[in-house]
Formats: sequence, structure tokens, C-alpha cells
Amino acid sequence: MATERCRAREFGLVIGGLQTGAHNAITDVAGVRVGHRTVIKGEGKCKIGEGPVRTGVTAILPAPDDLFVSKLQAGVHIINGFGKSVGLMQVAEVGTIETPILITNTLNVSKVADGLLDYLIMDKGLDAPSINPVVMECNDYYLSDICGRHMGKTEVVAAIEAASDGLVTEGSVGAGTGTAAYGFKGGVGTSSRIVSCGEQRFTVGALVVTNMGKPDQLRICGKPVGKKLMEQGVDPALGGSIIMVLATNAPLSSNQLRRVAARATHGLARTGSYSGNTSGDIVLAFSTARRMPLLPEQPILTLPEVSDNHIDMFFTAAADAIEESILNAMFMAETLIGRDGNTLCALPLDKVKPLLK
Amino acid sequence: MATERCRAREFGLVIGGLQTGAHNAITDVAGVRVGHRTVIKGEGKCKIGEGPVRTGVTAILPAPDDLFVSKLQAGVHIINGFGKSVGLMQVAEVGTIETPILITNTLNVSKVADGLLDYLIMDKGLDAPSINPVVMECNDYYLSDICGRHMGKTEVVAAIEAASDGLVTEGSVGAGTGTAAYGFKGGVGTSSRIVSCGEQRFTVGALVVTNMGKPDQLRICGKPVGKKLMEQGVDPALGGSIIMVLATNAPLSSNQLRRVAARATHGLARTGSYSGNTSGDIVLAFSTARRMPLLPEQPILTLPEVSDNHIDMFFTAAADAIEESILNAMFMAETLIGRDGNTLCALPLDKVKPLLK
Amino acid sequence: MATERCRAREFGLVIGGLQTGAHNAITDVAGVRVGHRTVIKGEGKCKIGEGPVRTGVTAILPAPDDLFVSKLQAGVHIINGFGKSVGLMQVAEVGTIETPILITNTLNVSKVADGLLDYLIMDKGLDAPSINPVVMECNDYYLSDICGRHMGKTEVVAAIEAASDGLVTEGSVGAGTGTAAYGFKGGVGTSSRIVSCGEQRFTVGALVVTNMGKPDQLRICGKPVGKKLMEQGVDPALGGSIIMVLATNAPLSSNQLRRVAARATHGLARTGSYSGNTSGDIVLAFSTARRMPLLPEQPILTLPEVSDNHIDMFFTAAADAIEESILNAMFMAETLIGRDGNTLCALPLDKVKPLLK
Amino acid sequence: MATERCRAREFGLVIGGLQTGAHNAITDVAGVRVGHRTVIKGEGKCKIGEGPVRTGVTAILPAPDDLFVSKLQAGVHIINGFGKSVGLMQVAEVGTIETPILITNTLNVSKVADGLLDYLIMDKGLDAPSINPVVMECNDYYLSDICGRHMGKTEVVAAIEAASDGLVTEGSVGAGTGTAAYGFKGGVGTSSRIVSCGEQRFTVGALVVTNMGKPDQLRICGKPVGKKLMEQGVDPALGGSIIMVLATNAPLSSNQLRRVAARATHGLARTGSYSGNTSGDIVLAFSTARRMPLLPEQPILTLPEVSDNHIDMFFTAAADAIEESILNAMFMAETLIGRDGNTLCALPLDKVKPLLK
Repeated sequence: MATERCRAREFGLVIGGLQTGAHNAITDVAGVRVGHRTVIKGEGKCKIGEGPVRTGVTAILPAPDDLFVSKLQAGVHIINGFGKSVGLMQVAEVGTIETPILITNTLNVSKVADGLLDYLIMDKGLDAPSINPVVMECNDYYLSDICGRHMGKTEVVAAIEAASDGLVTEGSVGAGTGTAAYGFKGGVGTSSRIVSCGEQRFTVGALVVTNMGKPDQLRICGKPVGKKLMEQGVDPALGGSIIMVLATNAPLSSNQLRRVAARATHGLARTGSYSGNTSGDIVLAFSTARRMPLLPEQPILTLPEVSDNHIDMFFTAAADAIEESILNAMFMAETLIGRDGNTLCALPLDKVKPLLK
Repeated sequence: MATERCRAREFGLVIGGLQTGAHNAITDVAGVRVGHRTVIKGEGKCKIGEGPVRTGVTAILPAPDDLFVSKLQAGVHIINGFGKSVGLMQVAEVGTIETPILITNTLNVSKVADGLLDYLIMDKGLDAPSINPVVMECNDYYLSDICGRHMGKTEVVAAIEAASDGLVTEGSVGAGTGTAAYGFKGGVGTSSRIVSCGEQRFTVGALVVTNMGKPDQLRICGKPVGKKLMEQGVDPALGGSIIMVLATNAPLSSNQLRRVAARATHGLARTGSYSGNTSGDIVLAFSTARRMPLLPEQPILTLPEVSDNHIDMFFTAAADAIEESILNAMFMAETLIGRDGNTLCALPLDKVKPLLK
Repeated sequence: MATERCRAREFGLVIGGLQTGAHNAITDVAGVRVGHRTVIKGEGKCKIGEGPVRTGVTAILPAPDDLFVSKLQAGVHIINGFGKSVGLMQVAEVGTIETPILITNTLNVSKVADGLLDYLIMDKGLDAPSINPVVMECNDYYLSDICGRHMGKTEVVAAIEAASDGLVTEGSVGAGTGTAAYGFKGGVGTSSRIVSCGEQRFTVGALVVTNMGKPDQLRICGKPVGKKLMEQGVDPALGGSIIMVLATNAPLSSNQLRRVAARATHGLARTGSYSGNTSGDIVLAFSTARRMPLLPEQPILTLPEVSDNHIDMFFTAAADAIEESILNAMFMAETLIGRDGNTLCALPLDKVKPLLK
Repeated sequence: MATERCRAREFGLVIGGLQTGAHNAITDVAGVRVGHRTVIKGEGKCKIGEGPVRTGVTAILPAPDDLFVSKLQAGVHIINGFGKSVGLMQVAEVGTIETPILITNTLNVSKVADGLLDYLIMDKGLDAPSINPVVMECNDYYLSDICGRHMGKTEVVAAIEAASDGLVTEGSVGAGTGTAAYGFKGGVGTSSRIVSCGEQRFTVGALVVTNMGKPDQLRICGKPVGKKLMEQGVDPALGGSIIMVLATNAPLSSNQLRRVAARATHGLARTGSYSGNTSGDIVLAFSTARRMPLLPEQPILTLPEVSDNHIDMFFTAAADAIEESILNAMFMAETLIGRDGNTLCALPLDKVKPLLK
């Protein structure tokens, strides 16, 4: 009988000293919405193009208005670049994003990016010759017919249209449907932190899709839970990547967002990963408080910017929210059987509990 | 009446002091093949999805054998990263390419990348959960219905299957079908250089798809040809990007290839470009002489590597071959009328001739 | 009465699953030697140029022969670049080091670098117009008259000449004389790991000079030791930087060494640091098994190189050795009183012991 | 008999289409001052430490007020990082400079950096534990006893105190005293451009210290002047590096300054250089219009920032001002005999004149 799933905090874990936002989710950053499209169909032997399918699309909508006419400041950090994410080169160069952020599986990136373009151009009437879709990925081949590339425009639109603020569904949903984490079932996780900056309070939100690490590496609140569980006979699976997205309503410049994104490494490392050779451990951070107009009224913009003297708390918030997001992904994901009978078992919370005492 | 087109060298121009290879083309690097798929259809007013179409796909096949089981060392340099090319993050991280290199237009990158995946998986039987397609792009919206994304698997396969060694078709073909260069008709250009390294001779080949620069910036062999032509009434068009690929059969490491790639900037600059804000001026360099096996027999490889003491000539060869490739693209491209009657005029060689005296 | 100091492993801690080398020190990499010059003089009120002095120089000699005529492959990773280390730009570009690696305090980098040049030129007869000294730094101003820049050629030569293989003195010595770690007394720490690669065994060694972090961030083997100690009334001090050096006798390319260096972040993060805004958290990794001759006999070198398929164990070894080095630095450092009566207290091992149960 | 020297523009050359500032110098950016200390002493055979000396220090003072309490936004671009410049890592990380910018010779960087620290701490009373001196370098060993490291605090102070606005002395002065350029005598050169940005006009100023390139590479206004002169029997010397500094009073962010700095490559390339293997071709750009306070009154700053839509003109200005600065350095430098009778001949303007027709 399966243990009931719960978020890490409900389980009694506290990561770091900062308060969370209202929903302890990336959507605590005002204006940010998240939607998933989850596809689970078929069973048994994998036949390319037919399934079984255990995959999906997760959409992060950074702001409610038109991102293309009012771009958002953003920054990127590549922990290990063995990955197929698209759109990040331009983000690194000019420091802005101009489309929703999508996450899907490795071989589906292109089709999802094209689906996003089709949606923006044909459905939303964006008649622009240059659009930079940002699509990131984890590899769910262990459970899903990844070579079949089952996600297309339909699923992209579904994920985008499903986007809402408030609570975010975690675990085996969206891009996390078929992913692992330290050999267990992984998925989507989210968390948030409140940062004080003088008299103002800002929110930092994180959302991850986990797929990284080997079972013996897993640490929860510093405890070598993975190693202990393996001694109890847990079955390992190959490690992969992790996609990490950070959002904030603080006015951070693109260089500052790059630096905040780099601290996701610290949160990730605390859960045990070494960022393996074939990992695409990628971090994208954006701010809703620095908008870059497509057609500015004046050549000189006037923009708010957090002083670097106050940036340390954002580093802390980013690392802590990432760490908790990873745990949430694992704590909420349920066991899933995929192609060829391959199974990713949910982290056995009942066995974890005594190990964290 | 149109002037007959010819390559820069046939026109009497000599770039730098090094000798060219047999065909003065990237295919002078043994094993490298190039193929184009050119699509020109429709006329008149642009209707998204219907055309007119002036675009294509160019495929560079770096080696005749299976790239996935025997990857090629590669390096990347980003001059300006306002571009949508995919696959480069992984090349930068691990220093290898594992698929053909494709070039197409900006909004067609995703569809072409997916077409390449489909070809590799379904047609070639590559059953791998992680494949890193490298697809680069220029923006041909001025002549073509770019939002229609007309290139897909069919065109990808056609370009790959058309690939051959020997002479490379230049001008308005493949990914260069609808592109510009300094406001004139641009396209595909190629060139090569022979480098002596002790008693050995190596080849450096270049292939570019031009789309960069404004008319007044064009310099040919240092002469301000663009400015002079504008005084004679040439009609300007917007500037964009340039994609530059370098190949060599010298055993250069990924870091050395990155450094060689950086010298493409010098060749580009000599033709006048400033690498504008919205340019995706990207360089990819690969070596056919350092292969990285998917499944090495031994954990320690033994590999040749050019001493840095001998790398200067490769820098020179790269810059010169790029400069000549750009000129070849312009010298070979013919006037083309595209969507909405938009016209990119061939560089008027008859008017250029007296300016180069 | 002070607790007797011991290394983390003697204390009963085990970091990761890999074996250590004979001395659990960077000197386990054959040919690598370490020397310290420690200067402790004066007491009381700080007067710039007079002291009190609590600083030093640590020298890492990567190989016993002439580094300038036979350079070593190296790679760099910058976690946070608020630092004054010199020489790293050239290492990043060409992937080699050609001098001993020195570590000292922030404002003393220049004088130490000049001292190293003077030693190489005047004492060792190196008549070369271009020499790239590598000098890294931590900030020991809390205990020492840092503005006085008390380290010069004399101390550089002393550190180099004191270098030996075998056991490395840890704690408040050399560049770690006056440094902190999570608000406690920090210093020099070292560790090593054995990596299997097919049938061969290689060593990865680490040496750190700690100065990073705030007391509440300290984690030991995942346990929030810092926070617990603060509840017991530990007095905090400001956080700073950490310098991390990795050595290996495995033939890793400069790009691979850069990637291995990046995993020091994971080891650092596990001890609690967030890499603060004003940290110079810098990693330098070198290999003794890939030498680059100043004057190669042939233009094409033939070099061994670990296949990337076997690099994961080096990542693990690097992170683990760094984590243990940091703990060793703290476990071995003794309480030190410096300028103006400022005191950095040794990590109270007696109080730590029950917290790690 | 020597030809009289003159600046490129007085010679009749015009680089690009933008207007220059009042003095066609980096000092046209309001508040920027430049000073040189030139040391020419001794003749004949080189004896390390005794001379002959042909070197110096050039100081760029970015603003008249206290840079440490009100830092300036800055960005860095490394064309080729075989160089010993210090301070750039921190500039790249946090995007600010906080000291005067000094330029000297390769082996003198450390001593000059320490001299600057000593001046700031002891003479100016800067009691700060962390100061990031920015010192850049070219290699003047061909004429000067570079191993002797003759520049110290005295020369640093002399250069800083000599700094003034208005005309900048060019040619064989300061850090350019002993340097070459394409085998001829090089030195310091400067230039500026006016950029319109909406209704506002900004200035971009450049200052270079040339030491790069081989004689046959030299191009002036696109003409292969170097090659032609060599046919006339000019004696070549080894190539080295170029240091390029850009200043502007436009409010560019650190990321924008990095991007502007990258366009110095284009200006450099147009004079013929390929940025050789052992070149330290480095660009530092700063803005006087974005100041970052050491102790901000509010955690959120409000800062002006040029829209990227208007950045192209800054790219053009940077490249053109760099190109003209390089020519000015060569046009103004006079023949100089140095150690061991080594001679760098002034560019023979009388022979150049007919070649530019």
C-alpha cells in the first residue's frame, strides 16, 4: 500500500531560515502562473512513435501581459551543459525573455518549441520575424517512448491554457511526468522564500523538474538517506539532469539574475548531486520587476535595481527554495510504471521518516 | 542585364597570403560534405503558411562515418548571441558534435531540428535517448514567409542526401536562399586555406551563411565599397546575423577550436560588420582528426593535438577563409524578389570593379 | 582548556564513499609539494605597516621539474569572482600553469606575485619576458594588518623552500594563518581521493584556504552545526572567500579540468556556504599527467586523455575532497587573537561532537 | 631625417562616419583624465635590474571624485587571454571599477598594482580591507629590461598626478614607451566619437596601448600597407598584445559595456591583427553615468540605462574609435632604440602616404 504523499514541509522538514510565500510556490511571485499537460498512455513494450508515453509539458508564464512587447529581465547559469535546452544563448546575451518558459523531454524540445511558435504566431497573432522560444528539458526515456516525441502544439497549448496562479501541482506531472530523482520517481517541485530588502519584502520562487543523481547520492537535510535506503535494497536508475527556474519580483539586473541563478547549484548540491557528465543542469532566473519594452518611448530607460549590498539574501533564498523544490518533487511523486515495465518507485516516505530523526 | 556572377578569386581578389585548397571550399577538408535544399515558390503578398517562400536548408556532414558512435571534437564562439541556434550549449560543455550540422532560417530551427531527429531515429535507426542536433540560423524574413516555417523533415533529408564533396554551390541556395549581406543579396559562401605545421599540411575550410550588416558598412579588401555604392543610389535593407562554420583536419582540441572560432570575428570585421545588437553572429569549428568514441575501448584515450606554438597559422587561415567566404556569398548570389515584392539586389559586380582598382 | 585538534576523519567523519590517498592530502598526487610561511607577530591595536600580523604564504609546487619549460594542463572555475587572484585569465585561455601556485591575503597578492617573479628571474635565472604567476587570496583583515602587506619575496621564497611531499600542515598556517570559516577560525585544509578508471587508479587531491560563510550556515555532514552552536552563544564574524586547488595525476584536458573544478562548488555547498556577494570563491585544477612543452620537438603532440565516459568519478572525488578539506581546515585550526583584540575561535570540537551524533 | 609625426586624421584619414569629440581623445568623456610616466634611461647591453629602460605607466582616471565610494559600472571582453592584467575577474563578476586604471609592462603589473595600493592606502588614506586594482599590460621586452621591473609606486604616483583632461600625449609615452605595433614602433593612441541617442548626444572615448601584430598584417583604411612596406625592406619584430580601454558618459549597464567592449575586436581586426596565440588582447569599458555607491542610502537604486534598441551606434563608435586609436599610436610614435641596440622604427609616414592613395 502506498504511503500518502506530502510536501517536504508537511513532512516536517524546514530548509533554511527564511519564510516561504503563501503557497510555497513559484506562483507566490505575483503574476507568475504555472500549467501542466501530463500524458500517460499505453503500457508494455516500447515501440517508437506508439508509446508507452509518460511525459508532458510544463509551462511557466512569467507575467500576465504581453511578454514580447514588454520583455522580462533574465539571467542564465549553466552548471553542466550536456543538455538540449533552447533559447538560453539569447537570454545570456541580451538578458531578456520574451515568451513563456516551457519544459518537456530531451528529444521533444524542438517539437515543443515549434509548437510554441505556432501558438504565438497563428493563435496569438504575433507577426514577428524573430522570436526566441525558451524550452528546457529533462530526459524521461526510462519510462517513456522518448524517441517518439509525443508532445506537440496541442500539449503546449494545453499546458499554457492550464496555467494558473496559486497552488502548483507537483510530482509526476507535466515535464516531470516520467522523470527520476536520485533513482526514485522525481518530477516537478516548487517552493518560495520571502526576502527583506530594507523596508521592502520581495519573493523568490523556484520550480524544478528533477531527473538528476544516483540513489546513493541523495541527501535530505544533510542526511545520507539515499545510501541508507540502498542498504535496504532500493533499485538504482541512471542519473540525468535538473532544470531549475527562479522567479522574483525584486528588480534584479540580468547580471544579478545570472549570479542568483548560480546559487541554485548550492541548493542542488545539498540534495547530493555531483552534476554528472551527461547532466544538463541548467538554471534560468527572471525578474518581473524589470521590463524591457520592445519599442521604448525614450532611448534612456529609468529602472530600479537592487544594490549588490543587498543581494546575499537573494542568494540564500534561491539556494533554499531550490533545495526545497527538489525535495517537494520527490516527496510528491508517486510510483510510476512505464515502457518495458520500467518502474520508478516513489521515495518511500515511511522508510525516510526514521532516517531523518 | 545582370552581370555574370563569379567567385571573389575569379574576380581577381586575393585574401591573405595562404594558399587555398583544391576547390577553395570547406569540402577541401577530407570527408566533409555539403548539401543544400533550396525552396523558391510563390510570389506577391505574404500570407503566413502559404508563402511566398525563399528559404532552404544547408547541411554540413562533418565525416562520412557514424558521427554518433564516433563524435568529432568541436568548439564554439559567440560573437553576439541574439540568435536561435540550437545544440551549441552542449558543444561548449563537452566539446563534441554528434550529428550533421544544419542551417536554416530563424523560425524554422525547431522544425528542422525535429526533422533531423526524425531522420536519425526513424530512417537511420538511431535508438538513443539523448541526441544533440546542431541547427543554426539566419533570418530571411525580408524575402520569405518566415512565420510559415516551411522547412521540415522533407527538406532536411533532401539537404543531407544532396551532400557531396568537391565544389559547393554558393549564393542564393540552401539556408542562404533568402538572406542578405550588407543590404545586398547574400547567401552561402565557402573558402579554404592550407596551413603548414612542421612538415605536415592541414586544411582549414569555412562555410558561411551571410545576413549581416548595413550597406554603408561593406568593405571589400578594405575598400569602402558599400559607402560608394550607396552614393550611387543602392537601396538599403536591415542587417542581421551571420553563421560561420569552420572545419579542419588538424588535430585541434575543443579549447583550440574555440580559439580558432574566435578568429572568425576578425575575418567578419574586415568585411565591415559591427555585429549589431540583434545579430546572432555565431561560429562553430570542428576537427575531423580528433574523434571521441561513444563507447571507448579504453578509459584513457591517446590523441594527437597541435601544439599551441603552431596555432597562429590556424587563426590566420580561419579569419582569411571566413573573409573570402563572405565575399563569395555576395559575389555568387543573384538578385531575388521575394514576398510583397521585396527585392534584394545582387552586389553589382560591374560597379564594384572600378571601386576596387 | 582547549580541545585537542584533529582532522575530520580522526574525529570519526567520513565524507563520501571513495578511499583517500596515503596522507589524505593534495601531496598524495605524486610530485605535488606544499609549503607554508606563517607570520604571527605583534599584538594590540592595528597600525598600518606595523601590524599586528597574522598572515602568510602557502605554496603549491605542482611538479618537481621545471614548470616553465614543461607546463601543466590546468582549468579554472569561478564560483563568484569578487576576488583579486592573478594569473587565472591566462590559465582559462590556454589551459596551462607555468609557475608554483601561491596563496596569500587579498591586498598582498601583488607583492607576492612580484616576489615570485623576482625569485624566478633573479634566483632561478628564468630569463623570460612573459611569465604568468598564479597567486590566489583570502581576506584575513579581521586578525591581521592587511593594509600593511607584510608578505614579500622573503616569505614567498620561504614558503617555496619549505615545500615537501607527505603530510601537509593544516589549520592556521600559511595563507590560512589569519582566515576564518563560518565565523570560526579557518585556515588551510587538505584531503585526497582515489579514483578507479578501468584498471588504473588515479589520485585527486584538494587543498583549500577557507574564509567563507557565516556561522549559521555551517553544516557538517549535513547537520546544521553552525546554527546549533549559535544557539549556544557563538560570536559571528563576517564571511569572505574560499580558495580551492585541485590536483590530479589523471590525464585530464584543460576543459575537463575546468569541469572537475566546477564540482568544488558541490563540496563547498555541502558545508553550508552560499558564496556571498563579496566572495572570491575560486577553483584551480591541474593535472600532472599532461605536460605542455615550451619548445615541443614536434608540432603535433600525442597526449593521453581520460574519456568523458569515465569523468564522473573525478567529479565525485573533487567534491568530496573539497568538502573534507574544508572540515580539516576548521578542525585543525586553533583559536587566534589578532589585531585590535579581534579573536577567531576554533570550532569547539567538544561541542560539535554531540551535534553530529 | 625623420618625417614629422601627426595623428591619423591630420594625415587625412577618416575612420567611419561618426564625428569625433573635441580632442578626439578618451578625455572627451567628461571627467576622464589621462596621465603618463615615461622612463627612458640607459643604452646598450641589457643587464637585468639595470636597464636599459624603455617603459612607463599610463593612468586613466575615470572620474574626478572618489571611485571607491562611488564605483563606476564597467564591462570586460577578452579577445585572447594570454595576458597578465589584474582586476578583471572582479569587474566581470560585479560590473564595477573602484580604482584608477593603470597600464604598464607585463612583468611590472604586480609591482605597479602594489604601488597603486600603497598610494591609495598610505597617501590617500583608503582604509579598506578589499581593494581591486585594475592594471593592464603590454610586453616591451624588445626595447626594455622587462625582467628588471623598473616601475613602482613612484612612477604610479607620477602617472596619476600627471593626469589631465584635454589633449592626450600619444606615441612612445607611458605604457606605450617601449611597445610595438605590427613590427613598427607603437605606443599610446586615443580617439573618440559622438553618438546620438534620441535627442541626447553621448561620447565614446578609446585609449589603446598597441603591441600586437606582424608587419605584413598591417592594414590602414583597408590597404595592405604592411605588406607593401615589407616589400620595401621593413624589418619585422615579434607581435604581442593590445590593451584597449573604452569610456562613455552614456548610461550603459555592465552587460551592455561588455557587449560594447566586444566590438573593439572589430576595430582591431580592421588594422590587420589576428590576435595571436600569445596575445593578451583585452578590452575594458566603463561608464561615468552609472555610479554604484559603496554605501547606498536605499537598497533599491534607480538608474538610467540605454535601451538596447539604441546600442548599435555605441558598437560602431567603439570599433571606429579603437581603429583610429591604433593608427594614432603608430602615427605618433617615433623611432626608438632600446636594449642591445634593438630598434623599433616609426611607421614611415612618407612611404605610407603614397600607399594610401
